[in-house]
Amino acid sequence: MTDSYEPTERTIPTRSRDRASYDRAAVHSILDEGYVCHLGFVRDGAPVVLPTLYGRIGDRLYVHGSTGSRPLRMAGSRGGEAPGLRVCLTVTHVDGLVLARSAFHHSINYRSVVVHGTAHQVTDPEERRTALDALVDHVVPGRSDDSRPANAKELAATAVLRLDLGEVSAKVRTGGPNDEPEDASLPHWSGVIPVRKAYGTPVPADDHDPAIPLPGYLSVL
Amino acid sequence: MTDSYEPTERTIPTRSRDRASYDRAAVHSILDEGYVCHLGFVRDGAPVVLPTLYGRIGDRLYVHGSTGSRPLRMAGSRGGEAPGLRVCLTVTHVDGLVLARSAFHHSINYRSVVVHGTAHQVTDPEERRTALDALVDHVVPGRSDDSRPANAKELAATAVLRLDLGEVSAKVRTGGPNDEPEDASLPHWSGVIPVRKAYGTPVPADDHDPAIPLPGYLSVL
Repeated sequence: MTDSYEPTERTIPTRSRDRASYDRAAVHSILDEGYVCHLGFVRDGAPVVLPTLYGRIGDRLYVHGSTGSRPLRMAGSRGGEAPGLRVCLTVTHVDGLVLARSAFHHSINYRSVVVHGTAHQVTDPEERRTALDALVDHVVPGRSDDSRPANAKELAATAVLRLDLGEVSAKVRTGGPNDEPEDASLPHWSGVIPVRKAYGTPVPADDHDPAIPLPGYLSVL
Repeated sequence: MTDSYEPTERTIPTRSRDRASYDRAAVHSILDEGYVCHLGFVRDGAPVVLPTLYGRIGDRLYVHGSTGSRPLRMAGSRGGEAPGLRVCLTVTHVDGLVLARSAFHHSINYRSVVVHGTAHQVTDPEERRTALDALVDHVVPGRSDDSRPANAKELAATAVLRLDLGEVSAKVRTGGPNDEPEDASLPHWSGVIPVRKAYGTPVPADDHDPAIPLPGYLSVL
C-alpha cells in the first residue's frame, strides 16, 4: 500500500489544483474528524444527495441505514450478485470565513474529501458488526463498548454499505484573503473568522439514572 | 404563493415521514442558517457531490463558481438555450449527538433541506449582481455593502447558477434517545450532546490596517 491515492481524471480538479491532495494520511485525517457525509447517487437519471453517518476502517468506508431506505435497497439485496450502487461520498469541514476587501476574493477555509466508487452491501456478519461499531465510534470514540450491541432483530433491519477508498482526493484551503494588490488601501476590514464545531453541556435523557456518571469519553469532546 | 411546498414522490421519504416538512418558513430558516451546501449532479452517468457556497433570494437559490468549473460549464453557456443541469442541493445542520443505551438507537439531531431541480446559468446582469451580493451576505450578513463590488473582469470570470425552490423538503430530528423500554435499566449514560457552530477571534490579514476597526456585523457572529 502506497502513501498516496492514485489521481484520476475525476479527482484532478479543473481549478485550484494546488489545493488538491492525494496523501493517504491527510485524507484519513479529514475523514476521521467528521461523522456526517453527504452521499450522492443517481436515481432515475437524477442526482440525489443525502446526509448520513459514516465510519472508516482502514481503506474502507461504511454507511448504514434501514433495509427499506432507497440507496440501501438500490445497492442490492444481501447475498445477491448485485452490481452495487455508484456513489460519491463527500465530507467537508469549514475552518474559517475569509473576508477579502473585494467581494470576488471572499472565500472559505475548508478541508474536504471526495470519494468516488461503487458501494456494496456487506453480508459477512463479522464485517457488519465491526462496521456498525465503527459507525458508533466515529461519532463518539469509545461509545460502542459502552452500549448494548445490536440484537438479531436490529441487525436484520440494518443494511450496511461498504465503499472502498480508491478514487479519492482531499481539497484544502488555508490562510488569509488573497486580495488584489491595488485593493490593499481600501477601507474594509480583511482577515479570517475562525469557525469550529463546539459541544454544549450534555443533556441526560428524561429517564436517565443520576447514579450513572458522565463517562470519560464524553468529557473529552 | 402558498405556505408550503408541494410534496412529490421524490420528497416524501420512505422512512421517518414524521420528520419531513414542506413548510416554506421552516425550509427557508434552515437554508438561511447555513452557507455551505453539497451540490450533486451527474457526470458521465456517475454522481458527483461538491461542497459550495449558496445564497437565497426568496424562492431562488444561487451558487457560483469559475466559468471554467465543471458543473457551471455543464449548465450551459451564457445566452444559450441550454437545458440546464439537473442537481440536488442539500444543506445540513448537526444539532446534537444522541446517545442511546443501545447501539441501534444512536442518532443525530439535525435539520436538513434537500432541493431537487434544474439549475440554469443566470445571464441577466442585474440578477447576477444581486445573486453575488446574496452569496456574500449569506456567509456574513451585511458584508456585501462593506467590500469592493466585482469589476467587469471578475464578473466575466464568474458563472452564477439559479435553482428555483419548488421540489424541496426539510427533515428534522430533535429530542432525546428513543431507547427500547427493556433497555432503560442498562448501566449506560444516555442523553444528548449539543453541537453548534462556534466562531473564534477574528484574525486580521497580514497587511490589514490597524486603524480599521472590526465592523459591527462581525462582532455579532
